[in-house]
Amino acid sequence: MSETDMRLVVVGAAGRMGQTLIRIVHETPGVRLHAAIERSGSPFLGRDAGELAGVGQMGVAVSDKPLEAFVEAEGVLDFTAPSATVEFADLAAQARIVHVVGTTGCSADDEARIRAAARHARVIKSGNMSLGVNLLGVLTEKAARALPAQGWDIEILEMHHRHKVDAPSGTALLLGEAAARGRGIKLADHSVRVRDGHTGARVEGAIGFATLRGGSVIGEHSVVIAGEGEMVTLSHSATDRSIFARGAVSAAIWGRSQKPGFYSMLDVLGLD
Amino acid sequence: MSETDMRLVVVGAAGRMGQTLIRIVHETPGVRLHAAIERSGSPFLGRDAGELAGVGQMGVAVSDKPLEAFVEAEGVLDFTAPSATVEFADLAAQARIVHVVGTTGCSADDEARIRAAARHARVIKSGNMSLGVNLLGVLTEKAARALPAQGWDIEILEMHHRHKVDAPSGTALLLGEAAARGRGIKLADHSVRVRDGHTGARVEGAIGFATLRGGSVIGEHSVVIAGEGEMVTLSHSATDRSIFARGAVSAAIWGRSQKPGFYSMLDVLGLD
Amino acid sequence: MSETDMRLVVVGAAGRMGQTLIRIVHETPGVRLHAAIERSGSPFLGRDAGELAGVGQMGVAVSDKPLEAFVEAEGVLDFTAPSATVEFADLAAQARIVHVVGTTGCSADDEARIRAAARHARVIKSGNMSLGVNLLGVLTEKAARALPAQGWDIEILEMHHRHKVDAPSGTALLLGEAAARGRGIKLADHSVRVRDGHTGARVEGAIGFATLRGGSVIGEHSVVIAGEGEMVTLSHSATDRSIFARGAVSAAIWGRSQKPGFYSMLDVLGLD
Amino acid sequence: MSETDMRLVVVGAAGRMGQTLIRIVHETPGVRLHAAIERSGSPFLGRDAGELAGVGQMGVAVSDKPLEAFVEAEGVLDFTAPSATVEFADLAAQARIVHVVGTTGCSADDEARIRAAARHARVIKSGNMSLGVNLLGVLTEKAARALPAQGWDIEILEMHHRHKVDAPSGTALLLGEAAARGRGIKLADHSVRVRDGHTGARVEGAIGFATLRGGSVIGEHSVVIAGEGEMVTLSHSATDRSIFARGAVSAAIWGRSQKPGFYSMLDVLGLD
Repeated sequence: MSETDMRLVVVGAAGRMGQTLIRIVHETPGVRLHAAIERSGSPFLGRDAGELAGVGQMGVAVSDKPLEAFVEAEGVLDFTAPSATVEFADLAAQARIVHVVGTTGCSADDEARIRAAARHARVIKSGNMSLGVNLLGVLTEKAARALPAQGWDIEILEMHHRHKVDAPSGTALLLGEAAARGRGIKLADHSVRVRDGHTGARVEGAIGFATLRGGSVIGEHSVVIAGEGEMVTLSHSATDRSIFARGAVSAAIWGRSQKPGFYSMLDVLGLD
Repeated sequence: MSETDMRLVVVGAAGRMGQTLIRIVHETPGVRLHAAIERSGSPFLGRDAGELAGVGQMGVAVSDKPLEAFVEAEGVLDFTAPSATVEFADLAAQARIVHVVGTTGCSADDEARIRAAARHARVIKSGNMSLGVNLLGVLTEKAARALPAQGWDIEILEMHHRHKVDAPSGTALLLGEAAARGRGIKLADHSVRVRDGHTGARVEGAIGFATLRGGSVIGEHSVVIAGEGEMVTLSHSATDRSIFARGAVSAAIWGRSQKPGFYSMLDVLGLD
Repeated sequence: MSETDMRLVVVGAAGRMGQTLIRIVHETPGVRLHAAIERSGSPFLGRDAGELAGVGQMGVAVSDKPLEAFVEAEGVLDFTAPSATVEFADLAAQARIVHVVGTTGCSADDEARIRAAARHARVIKSGNMSLGVNLLGVLTEKAARALPAQGWDIEILEMHHRHKVDAPSGTALLLGEAAARGRGIKLADHSVRVRDGHTGARVEGAIGFATLRGGSVIGEHSVVIAGEGEMVTLSHSATDRSIFARGAVSAAIWGRSQKPGFYSMLDVLGLD
Repeated sequence: MSETDMRLVVVGAAGRMGQTLIRIVHETPGVRLHAAIERSGSPFLGRDAGELAGVGQMGVAVSDKPLEAFVEAEGVLDFTAPSATVEFADLAAQARIVHVVGTTGCSADDEARIRAAARHARVIKSGNMSLGVNLLGVLTEKAARALPAQGWDIEILEMHHRHKVDAPSGTALLLGEAAARGRGIKLADHSVRVRDGHTGARVEGAIGFATLRGGSVIGEHSVVIAGEGEMVTLSHSATDRSIFARGAVSAAIWGRSQKPGFYSMLDVLGLD
């Protein structure tokens, strides 16, 4: 740890993702844990963040005072829930720090409020913080542009663990959006999310989704582009939840030297 | 061609599958085309079956007289439709020959009538005539028996070309039945065929289905059995429609030396 | 067929690829078969090209006079052998027509001679004429550029039918070259083509190759980019040899309106 | 923890696998950690085994006295090295306890010595302790028996992380042995482990191996059986090293009620 290490706050610190974030901050050179935040009333308040995350005492007690933490910090890592995230966005704007948002399920209103905060904060938001998934999105868009809908059919397959309660995954939809963008169409007008019984032949230009659930699978996604006699498949497989935390920390470091604004992982990765 | 070649009739001779059957009969040692049948009024009546199938003149004109053909033949290869197949079953019983049935979509009534015919005919019926698919069914049942539902989740994925009008495929359902048999459960009580929106967590013991459609894919099937930290996948890929015809011809040859009865491809393959 | 159809010559007309080219020319609007060439002494000279290809009489007899054919044609489709291709390149230059070259295994000398011919001919040459494979190459280069060698390992896997006599496939090497280009390195300095026994740990920056052989597989290629906790896989699967012929015909049509020069499929596809 | 819990010793306790074993013993009902052994001179001697494994204090100090530990225990979990394992086998025989051996790379001599120890100990030894891999072996043997070498080609593909120093993996070889057993041949006479340059066509009956290395992949294995126009693929994917430890603990519990002898995971799983 050095004087120049970027000071980061982890919110939702006692959750599974919060613990992973603490662990990755702990093991990544150039950053350090400044504070760990939980909601008021959490049984974990006052506990040492490092012990919670299984990496040994870190000298940072879990607190329920985000603003206090943000004003002395340089960035906040946030994989909580939409209602919490919009509040953290306001606070991050007040503190003028980096806000890395991995939260999913935000409404249009939530999104607008986060973008408003980005006038003062440097917000980096993505439905999936992994380098590989973001690359996959870029490649999907490019492939969808190169291979015409007349002759090439796009399908998106995802598999997640048995505990996941919704379908398709946010990442599958993100890949569908990328494909639609490449085709110059709206996903909502072309997505096919259910096939059961008599479906009729596939409609040209459709983007199909299929979902598998089972075991402890962290996340598998494939974009299948099938033509006459040949097929291109672009896939991503996540085998360790820490990839999202690693991506978030990379995003925070990148954001440290940017101007206020609303960014995506593509900016972070120079893929845009 | 020799005197001892098995004499086979192809019904539905002018269709895509009929033509493939004619071609495979033509190129397989030990069998020969005795007759090619189409429905009355077909524009193909009188045409040479070999020319229709693209293998050159064979001296067999397409006819609409099945019984006449069956009484002089030893077997019939039938990938038509349920209504036609039940009639062919009656005729095959009268002629006491082998009836290889690759027709799908038979109702319980159709099935009963075909089984009745099997008192006199040697019927070999399968939803999928390929050696590989039938092996996959056996392996799926064995795997489903070895890996308990508590801890191991079964999912079935299939992909077919863009022209297919129903889902899941007959073969996917056949694999689901094999898995259910291995588990000692009824597929109908445990199958999950749609996942969209809020699905809730996966229910223990469920057998999930997912469907992809695109390009010219002849048939891809995977049985995924996912546990904590590991996953077993059993897959079959068909890249040539002739595999079904090849399997049907093998079945006919096998049936030649059997007693009347109702058989499956597992009998043919010694996998039972 | 119309007056404005592009007149194409198929060389190596009696071979498997030649027959496929004839078939695809026959079924593609906007082109027609002008001549079909075989080497002197071929038993197929004088035979009708359409009958050879199984599409019925076309009125084009197989000939051994390429120059005569080229001067009246607009393009030549060539999947022969290096020694033949360099000669066809000279003739195509004399006739100032389009020369689509799918021939593999050319030496540096062969390549130089073909490029020299491109001063007068419009040469389109690719180790693989399929749209999907060429797209895969572009995506591979982009992915290799985005994901640094420190942390991301590139492996290339291919599978072909049991009759293939060399390894790795030309397409696998082409994908390896694309990955090396993306990384700014030379493939020859980093490729690992054998792993057996004690190999030691993987060297950073290596590009590994692995080969499967079996059945009737036409061509499967995967580029695997494996990082810590995640993996990106880019794949192509060919299930019908006609994709190469289809790509060649598209290339010829594209080349009709270009200036003399040496082009690749990326130019044809607007992917460069 | 109860009086009836099976008392287990973990050898190689400070290594990565040793730590995982301690963790899984800690979280599995019905067993408890009796002792944790390291070699003399290890810097970890005297340290608490639970703290080492990251599961908190367990009151078991790492020791270098295996015999002392064994005589009071009921089983030993051993994923060390051949030289250590043969010594532990002798001690386990003296103590007449269960010896679960996940060690790989044993010579014929080592193997003989371990089998000799099995006159008094209950030895359960497998090159791979996972339930899924052992099932895959059984299915591979069955498939290889059903699909004849004439027409069906067997290939085995594996992928592991970048740190693995040998190829093919022990599990790949184990699957190759299963395939050879199904075919009634010797693997050594039919295995093809290198393909590079001019290989010639595939030899009927060959069993090919291919190896990928990269990222943090714990273990992917596929048995590909490729025929004319179709392909069967049987795969296993491990995403968590704990599957081997879980399998080892299951094996120990199973062994507790067996007679002395030499067993495999198939016995444990009732798959034989």
